[in-house]
Amino acid sequence: MQEIRYRPIGIIHSPFKEVSGMPIQPSGALGIKGTIEVFTEYSPGLKDIDGFSHIILIYHFHLSKGYALEVEPFLEDQIHGIFAVRAPARPNPIGISVVRLVGVNDNILQIEDVDVINGTPLLDIKPYVPDFDWREAKSTGWLSNKSLNARKHRSDNRFKGE
Amino acid sequence: MQEIRYRPIGIIHSPFKEVSGMPIQPSGALGIKGTIEVFTEYSPGLKDIDGFSHIILIYHFHLSKGYALEVEPFLEDQIHGIFAVRAPARPNPIGISVVRLVGVNDNILQIEDVDVINGTPLLDIKPYVPDFDWREAKSTGWLSNKSLNARKHRSDNRFKGE
Repeated sequence: MQEIRYRPIGIIHSPFKEVSGMPIQPSGALGIKGTIEVFTEYSPGLKDIDGFSHIILIYHFHLSKGYALEVEPFLEDQIHGIFAVRAPARPNPIGISVVRLVGVNDNILQIEDVDVINGTPLLDIKPYVPDFDWREAKSTGWLSNKSLNARKHRSDNRFKGE
Repeated sequence: MQEIRYRPIGIIHSPFKEVSGMPIQPSGALGIKGTIEVFTEYSPGLKDIDGFSHIILIYHFHLSKGYALEVEPFLEDQIHGIFAVRAPARPNPIGISVVRLVGVNDNILQIEDVDVINGTPLLDIKPYVPDFDWREAKSTGWLSNKSLNARKHRSDNRFKGE
């Protein structure tokens, strides 16, 4: 099937300069500040985004080289399929994070709860709307009694693909 | 900045053969059944996905031709920036939907609450985990008193780009 081509609309800046030791989810990055630099050609697309307390970032895991279909995730020493985990080593290395939007100045967004490495190419921003995005999940599989551990667990280099 | 290239990992099948009249969010598509055909080369990546009641689909809005930075969304006759709305006519036409996972047979996933047009190229599947994905949003901007309307509102052709 045909290749799909995207271009970054901006860059995510964060305090995390290397993968090792960084949070693995926004729940482990509460209060961590970052900025989004939206390339000026796309600035008009930010009109009225300042009304939203949270935004969804869709970005490219640019440090992920290649992928594995079965991986051992950070939170458990068992093998799971890549589509049942949130690790970056995916066939299409796309990441999503819901972050707090705390300020907007022209093409720069001030954000918090950032679990993204510095310099990450940004593909899209969407407003976070609980009525669109929240579900009462009856089951969360292997993560059922482990997802809360993401609040403290830190990354190592396993998915960096070096 | 450099182009990013992805390849579909599968196809989303749904009852919606044309854009006009279809739901604009999963909240307007409750109980609507569809299937995901994951290309067989990626089947091993589905291991243990059957434990999750909900999954996040990341897909390419393949019918969206071109984009606008300011648009009039479905739910309000006011102009907003594209990054403050969920419309498909985005610089990178990437869609996300949280759907219910009701069955898995090899490379075929049975899903419900499908708001996606038939034949949509699928880029990624992630497990939906409330502790990772849910936020108590203090404000939802222009959608504050309008997001519930997505339960009944239906699409027209405005973002199809014809």
